[in-house]
Amino acid sequence: MIIMRAEATDKEIADVVKETGKYGLKAEVSRGERRTVIELVGDQSKIPFSRLAVLPGVKEAAMVETPYRLISREYSRRLDEAGESRIVQVGNIRIGGDEPVFIAGPCAVENKRQLFKIAEGVKKAGAHILRGGIFKPRNSVHSFQGLGAIGREEAEEALSWLREAGDRYEMPVITEVRGEAQIDMVATYADILQIGTRNMYDQDLITGVARKKKPILYKRHFGAGIEEFLSFAEYIAAEGNKDIVLCERGILPLGKGRNYTRYTLDLAAIPAIQKETFLPVIADPSHATGRRDLIFNMSCAAIAAGASGLIIETHYNPAQSPVDSQQMVTPDELKEVIDACYKIRHLIAYNHK
Amino acid sequence: MIIMRAEATDKEIADVVKETGKYGLKAEVSRGERRTVIELVGDQSKIPFSRLAVLPGVKEAAMVETPYRLISREYSRRLDEAGESRIVQVGNIRIGGDEPVFIAGPCAVENKRQLFKIAEGVKKAGAHILRGGIFKPRNSVHSFQGLGAIGREEAEEALSWLREAGDRYEMPVITEVRGEAQIDMVATYADILQIGTRNMYDQDLITGVARKKKPILYKRHFGAGIEEFLSFAEYIAAEGNKDIVLCERGILPLGKGRNYTRYTLDLAAIPAIQKETFLPVIADPSHATGRRDLIFNMSCAAIAAGASGLIIETHYNPAQSPVDSQQMVTPDELKEVIDACYKIRHLIAYNHK
Amino acid sequence: MIIMRAEATDKEIADVVKETGKYGLKAEVSRGERRTVIELVGDQSKIPFSRLAVLPGVKEAAMVETPYRLISREYSRRLDEAGESRIVQVGNIRIGGDEPVFIAGPCAVENKRQLFKIAEGVKKAGAHILRGGIFKPRNSVHSFQGLGAIGREEAEEALSWLREAGDRYEMPVITEVRGEAQIDMVATYADILQIGTRNMYDQDLITGVARKKKPILYKRHFGAGIEEFLSFAEYIAAEGNKDIVLCERGILPLGKGRNYTRYTLDLAAIPAIQKETFLPVIADPSHATGRRDLIFNMSCAAIAAGASGLIIETHYNPAQSPVDSQQMVTPDELKEVIDACYKIRHLIAYNHK
Amino acid sequence: MIIMRAEATDKEIADVVKETGKYGLKAEVSRGERRTVIELVGDQSKIPFSRLAVLPGVKEAAMVETPYRLISREYSRRLDEAGESRIVQVGNIRIGGDEPVFIAGPCAVENKRQLFKIAEGVKKAGAHILRGGIFKPRNSVHSFQGLGAIGREEAEEALSWLREAGDRYEMPVITEVRGEAQIDMVATYADILQIGTRNMYDQDLITGVARKKKPILYKRHFGAGIEEFLSFAEYIAAEGNKDIVLCERGILPLGKGRNYTRYTLDLAAIPAIQKETFLPVIADPSHATGRRDLIFNMSCAAIAAGASGLIIETHYNPAQSPVDSQQMVTPDELKEVIDACYKIRHLIAYNHK
Repeated sequence: MIIMRAEATDKEIADVVKETGKYGLKAEVSRGERRTVIELVGDQSKIPFSRLAVLPGVKEAAMVETPYRLISREYSRRLDEAGESRIVQVGNIRIGGDEPVFIAGPCAVENKRQLFKIAEGVKKAGAHILRGGIFKPRNSVHSFQGLGAIGREEAEEALSWLREAGDRYEMPVITEVRGEAQIDMVATYADILQIGTRNMYDQDLITGVARKKKPILYKRHFGAGIEEFLSFAEYIAAEGNKDIVLCERGILPLGKGRNYTRYTLDLAAIPAIQKETFLPVIADPSHATGRRDLIFNMSCAAIAAGASGLIIETHYNPAQSPVDSQQMVTPDELKEVIDACYKIRHLIAYNHK
Repeated sequence: MIIMRAEATDKEIADVVKETGKYGLKAEVSRGERRTVIELVGDQSKIPFSRLAVLPGVKEAAMVETPYRLISREYSRRLDEAGESRIVQVGNIRIGGDEPVFIAGPCAVENKRQLFKIAEGVKKAGAHILRGGIFKPRNSVHSFQGLGAIGREEAEEALSWLREAGDRYEMPVITEVRGEAQIDMVATYADILQIGTRNMYDQDLITGVARKKKPILYKRHFGAGIEEFLSFAEYIAAEGNKDIVLCERGILPLGKGRNYTRYTLDLAAIPAIQKETFLPVIADPSHATGRRDLIFNMSCAAIAAGASGLIIETHYNPAQSPVDSQQMVTPDELKEVIDACYKIRHLIAYNHK
Repeated sequence: MIIMRAEATDKEIADVVKETGKYGLKAEVSRGERRTVIELVGDQSKIPFSRLAVLPGVKEAAMVETPYRLISREYSRRLDEAGESRIVQVGNIRIGGDEPVFIAGPCAVENKRQLFKIAEGVKKAGAHILRGGIFKPRNSVHSFQGLGAIGREEAEEALSWLREAGDRYEMPVITEVRGEAQIDMVATYADILQIGTRNMYDQDLITGVARKKKPILYKRHFGAGIEEFLSFAEYIAAEGNKDIVLCERGILPLGKGRNYTRYTLDLAAIPAIQKETFLPVIADPSHATGRRDLIFNMSCAAIAAGASGLIIETHYNPAQSPVDSQQMVTPDELKEVIDACYKIRHLIAYNHK
Repeated sequence: MIIMRAEATDKEIADVVKETGKYGLKAEVSRGERRTVIELVGDQSKIPFSRLAVLPGVKEAAMVETPYRLISREYSRRLDEAGESRIVQVGNIRIGGDEPVFIAGPCAVENKRQLFKIAEGVKKAGAHILRGGIFKPRNSVHSFQGLGAIGREEAEEALSWLREAGDRYEMPVITEVRGEAQIDMVATYADILQIGTRNMYDQDLITGVARKKKPILYKRHFGAGIEEFLSFAEYIAAEGNKDIVLCERGILPLGKGRNYTRYTLDLAAIPAIQKETFLPVIADPSHATGRRDLIFNMSCAAIAAGASGLIIETHYNPAQSPVDSQQMVTPDELKEVIDACYKIRHLIAYNHK
């Protein structure tokens, strides 16, 4: 990170960028009111910061130790950006503002009729964004893999239904990108791209998705510490894309015997992350608990903990879903959740700064 | 478990109890309105239930597979007890009812003046029960171990301060029993006995404490699954003491790198446990997060998840505390927490049945 | 899984395959001496096995419940393949046979001179396969990402050095494929393709790599249970590629405080996996321990536990390595490890059947 | 820690001890050849080391930061004790020397005949110390709790059988102390006292057992990091008892799905601990794997990793054991294990210094 003096000229700035280029690093120039900052992306261990510090126009040049400085609230503060929480805009929906945002829809898109029926239901229940899985990550190659697995044509058709359902019911749409070959196709149809828990560490996929310059819903891996999670989110920011919504979806359960939930929803991670980064954080109570009968309580708890929103799997007939049937709620149950969450959020007007 | 017919005579019941005694099991007789149940405590694997089933007056005799049938909501339902949530009465405070209960006070009792000053503060803030550690479990023999470690006399003096502070400020008092030799002494002074996270698996200690027939605050071990936690709580119930308040206080964090919280507060465990057992469950956000700046959010989240109360470490001058200074709140901060929690609880009137 | 009678005709077999195709499943026909088996890949939940069972020539038709039947030792036994351990042939090296196999080389290829010097060293020490990382998965976008990150040309040049070093010192070569875009390029140069721990769950990458029909070194994710690991290895087998070498490389450490090793090397997983599947399993003591001073002990332990080989990071000057310098051994130390491992292996002539 | 000058007089030493007593710490004086060291046990945070440093005869006075300095190899080196590995003598058996030590016997003592028959078998197989559980820690109050649970008389009788069997077959005997009330009784009969995994954190029990001044087998808790394990072992040393044998018995498994072993045997912990402390470390492959068919492999692996011995559950008829029947080996299988372990140990003559 190099901070230039207020009076630094364009040529001085360009010279510094040129100099850093000799060491194989990418430089991003942010011009603030009082000073200009040159952020370096890449391995800084061999950069002679002491040499850069004496170049004309340079006020300060130093290595930043944190692995996630581009999304760091503290670093943002140092840049005169005041560490403001970032609002991620998805269509006309603002994630990270005063009001909570609700993403809902089926785990997997089964057919057009099912999708439209659910879309109508979740819209009425108060959801803002429509979800629907087409490329499903599954633990067994012998399980249903989503319509995306049948063929390219079927995948594109399912994506077009999602687009159409979103347009019809006036909700931006989200779906998961599981592999690099799907990036272009999914980005054509979806308003916000999801990177799932199993792909959190997949830096090539992350980088490829980031380059589409669309908002990204980025889920924590179930075995990842928070520092790791943010360090990998930095791969997105390193592509110049800071429209990142982080999602806590549960970590591996611990201990012998039954735990009664599929994963452990780490709600304290939400305010902890909000203090570390300016990005909005939402929670996924469906995958975390794996239990329809715990969705209400854990949704309320997530909002009370400070979450900027929720993503909840919804189906008019949960038992019929080919995937995750035990954790689906109905649109009516979704409405109850949304109503309670608004009340809690209004009760506790968090300010994450 | 043996269910007797409504018309079973006292002699028939006594004969069945006698018969089970031959196999080395303890039998507890519960007389309900419509039927009498004989609960067996101990290894049932060699009991010939088919033989017991044909004794006069017996309606049903079968092994119950769950390791925690004495505290099981489902089993309670089968006994015509309707699976009602249990209210644990501590002095005039009811834990497990409609209103949340707040336990507060210093991590460690340092001296009389400190304790009384904090007691006054937490009472004003709205706390119901006063906590104060005298026998402190510590990871290092070279750390401060509480006043209880100095000597028997000092321990007793500190316990008497706690008693006096509770009486003065009209709050029942709680403190931890860490070893068997402390049971009698602590039970003389405290209204509710705490078994700490490190001792959850210590069945001899648990059994000894249970026998005092006082209410017990029983904390989940940081490496224990829920089934294990309830199985060990059953050791308390097996002594005929069901005045158990369970406490979720965080489990081991997971993943590489920093996690930004000391433990992972497993809030979904709260409603999950409430469905399994009729016992009240509270949360300890202080030890779980280890961070003063997360206490407010996580307290609200715990109540929203359905917790029957909270235990929060409080000190008028957190920096001065010899133990856990980073996670203490002041009485003023405690008041904010309590006020917000009441509002959330009233908003969501949970019924755990 | 459908088992045909010994006397089933080709037409009968073809008819069954055709019938299964109607349900969208891929069928692989294995002709054994005594019977022919038709393996189905995909979601079998909607297949009417009772209908298939009565088709001409069919002896048995039933769903196999395990998520990894294609690599299952037990299933292989049922197919009259006797559950024999599979030998994975990489060039002239046999992995999974009576002798242990040693893979060694630098964590990251730095330049041609470094690579050749290390290749010479590990060959002399007795290594069989040369490793060298070109596309490095890293936790921070700001760390050195391997020569592959500089550009396509640099990546290809580094790969050609690896190929050349392997040819010069007569060792097959292995390197990691981190993203789908690298598959073709890496497969052109390497004899065996590595899928790293962070990509274990990345089913699109796995499938793409499997299709190159080259041997694969497949590492367990540090948060994965064994059943999960094998279920994802099944994605490779589902592409008709069973030349899979599994690798135990350590799982997440547990508990508070320091653990003194980077990960927990789960050596019991090795014989446990060998009983479940016929695939060879090797160990990676370098990444598991992160400590040069533990490599000798843990290499011996891994071979004693039954590992078919080891992959060990080696550098003539560990301190100079840009990555993982603390866990590198020198070629001299490697020789000591290899010598001791041979002795242990010859002492305990395991037969994994 | 205070280091006295070589020429310090007895009075000077006594004065320093007296001075430290003012701060409530226990002082242990170790006289070496070249200097005398005063070790302090307890909370040193308030000790004015700078004041102690200028007392007559004092060479150096400083706080030692590690929570386990009394058992630390490095600290021992600093005391001119050369960091030598400690041999723990149990009867005529030396644990921690050049030869591995094998502890074997039934999980639970069932009756005298069973115990003697097994004792004879394990002696013939080459075992050195006889184990037999009388106070069994169990996850369910409804499971068999060992003969110790029946009553005090039955416990004492079972202990006397163990003593008698040890004398008859010339093996020292070991059994577990699960609660404080059992300490005196068990110490009367056993040569080495076991503290089980569930009691690792139970500092009152540990301290009480340590005071018997008998050797202790101290097992790591299944959720404990190594630093924690050693920090709690320090509670034993703080009582002046350094005859501690540490035992790695497996930590909690991780990940979704089946793991195929009960716990994860952390073999790298063995050499890691041997570098941190001078105490001997053994492994328990029985509880770690929970599988009879993995005992041979994991025993060999543990010895190859550097373990000073093994504790293995043995029964002439594993299926008949009321506890842990799936992980028992027969005396014949035990002999195979012991023979292979000797060969491996002789092959690799470790020197843990």
